Amino acid sequence: MASEFDLIARYFTHPAAGARLGVGDDAALIAPAPGMELAVSTDMLVAGTHFLPDADPLFLGHKALAVNLSDLAAMGAQPRWALLALALPAADEPWLAAFSQGFMGLAARYGVDLVGGDTTRGPLNLSVTILGEVEAGRALRRDAARAGDEVWVSGELGAAALGLRHLTGAHPLGEAEAAACLERLHRPTPRVELGRALLGVAHAAIDISDGLLADLGHVLDASGLGAEIELARVPAAPAVAGRLDDRQVLRCLLAGGDDYELCFTAPPGRADAVRAAGEAAGVGVARIGRIRAEPGLAVLGADGRPLVLEGRGYDHFSA
Amino acid sequence: MASEFDLIARYFTHPAAGARLGVGDDAALIAPAPGMELAVSTDMLVAGTHFLPDADPLFLGHKALAVNLSDLAAMGAQPRWALLALALPAADEPWLAAFSQGFMGLAARYGVDLVGGDTTRGPLNLSVTILGEVEAGRALRRDAARAGDEVWVSGELGAAALGLRHLTGAHPLGEAEAAACLERLHRPTPRVELGRALLGVAHAAIDISDGLLADLGHVLDASGLGAEIELARVPAAPAVAGRLDDRQVLRCLLAGGDDYELCFTAPPGRADAVRAAGEAAGVGVARIGRIRAEPGLAVLGADGRPLVLEGRGYDHFSA
Repeated sequence: MASEFDLIARYFTHPAAGARLGVGDDAALIAPAPGMELAVSTDMLVAGTHFLPDADPLFLGHKALAVNLSDLAAMGAQPRWALLALALPAADEPWLAAFSQGFMGLAARYGVDLVGGDTTRGPLNLSVTILGEVEAGRALRRDAARAGDEVWVSGELGAAALGLRHLTGAHPLGEAEAAACLERLHRPTPRVELGRALLGVAHAAIDISDGLLADLGHVLDASGLGAEIELARVPAAPAVAGRLDDRQVLRCLLAGGDDYELCFTAPPGRADAVRAAGEAAGVGVARIGRIRAEPGLAVLGADGRPLVLEGRGYDHFSA
Repeated sequence: MASEFDLIARYFTHPAAGARLGVGDDAALIAPAPGMELAVSTDMLVAGTHFLPDADPLFLGHKALAVNLSDLAAMGAQPRWALLALALPAADEPWLAAFSQGFMGLAARYGVDLVGGDTTRGPLNLSVTILGEVEAGRALRRDAARAGDEVWVSGELGAAALGLRHLTGAHPLGEAEAAACLERLHRPTPRVELGRALLGVAHAAIDISDGLLADLGHVLDASGLGAEIELARVPAAPAVAGRLDDRQVLRCLLAGGDDYELCFTAPPGRADAVRAAGEAAGVGVARIGRIRAEPGLAVLGADGRPLVLEGRGYDHFSA
């Protein structure tokens, strides 16, 4: 069996052009550019909780980094550096080769240097820390929504959650729909370019990892405000849009996790600037509702009456 | 069962005075002071690999942070911020209370703010990322040893490894010796103050996590050099010192992990400055050998002849 140091060297030591010192010392050395501050975040993915133990390692490598990039996107930060701590049941080289292809491929696409890590034996666990740069004082924070702001989301929602229901057998899909939904579940696109383009345009932002209602709820809690959204305006993925009479599919749209789109707020006068940001980033943006001073989150149905909702999203411990 | 958000808020949300934005958003916002760069490192501890599943959570909280602080100590960096990703089989509140007491207590001692994290359900896994500041261009790197440098270590070695042998029944100790060794195993002291004091004095440094020979070996590999050390000069913990005829105890001294002392090199003319750094940091320092241009690492016994050694240290995958 290859040694820990062999494994690190073979799969994860790429030149770290943007770091002062990369992998291979007790710590990496990095510095933000003048006028920038650092945004830093960590996410842990665990076999059996976040993915099936036999999940394709190519997808896992992509997703482990993508969910972290998505956190930076929600701050409007430019990803720069990542650290990867990886527990594996055994030093499975084909698995590592595919995992590193997924991880390093996405890292290269965003110019992210892997500057540190740790590999160890244990139940499969992927823990990534991401660092990025954002213009000092300008990050998109959860607590920055204002009453009267419009609420926007990027892309389309619900496909990842519906894909998971297809995988578990709860909601079998046809081949083409399944492929589209599983692509969103396995290979989410972090909205990094959109987050950057929204700096100076949006007030508050969050990425949709736990579900629209839960994540918008975090913005409302942090900002001390409420919101009203219109169901008909929430952009549904095609496989989801035709099935909204099914409560479970509606739940995929409003409370499904794993879409990794952005939900953000912007002043009513900035709708054109928001649309321009979406165009520049190559992703659709939809205005779905409005922030209001009264607390609470109401979803209005087609008849204008609030829907009754059971639970807002996904929580790893209260399920 | 408490929700993920309740758990984070209750145990890990302390005011982050040294961050621009702490726990509770998609990412934290931090910035190094002018003239400083950031040192960043990650370490993952896994139940069954790094500690027994029933290990005392108070010790685990301490150790999970201590091993990361030790990485910064080895760079000469001042710890500032930490992120904690934690997988737990269940939301066990007494466990979390004790764990956070160990973790946050050590964080407070070093002025470290916990600025981010992730808690999830899964086999017990503690993944910590640490960030610190070091004067730009002055960090203690592994690749900075020079031929002719003297090799030093801090503190005393071997107690943690002997404590582990006591725990597994391989080498039962008397009560007082066991207590002393287990204290080193469970609650290592990161040599942060020493690392800081060695800036401008030492050339290369590393922390001893895998064992003296393995870790000094990393310095030699990175620097393209060799070394000769004298067994009689290697500072042994009291329980180890009296038993060096036992090959397994000798192995604890030279190849035992988990001591988290520093091994570093400094020019021969700087011995007084090294001793002054040790005094300022409140830890002993011992000169154990010398860096030489020829590759290889020789350990000379009392008779001046090289010892024959089997394996240098601990490796999570080649064991």
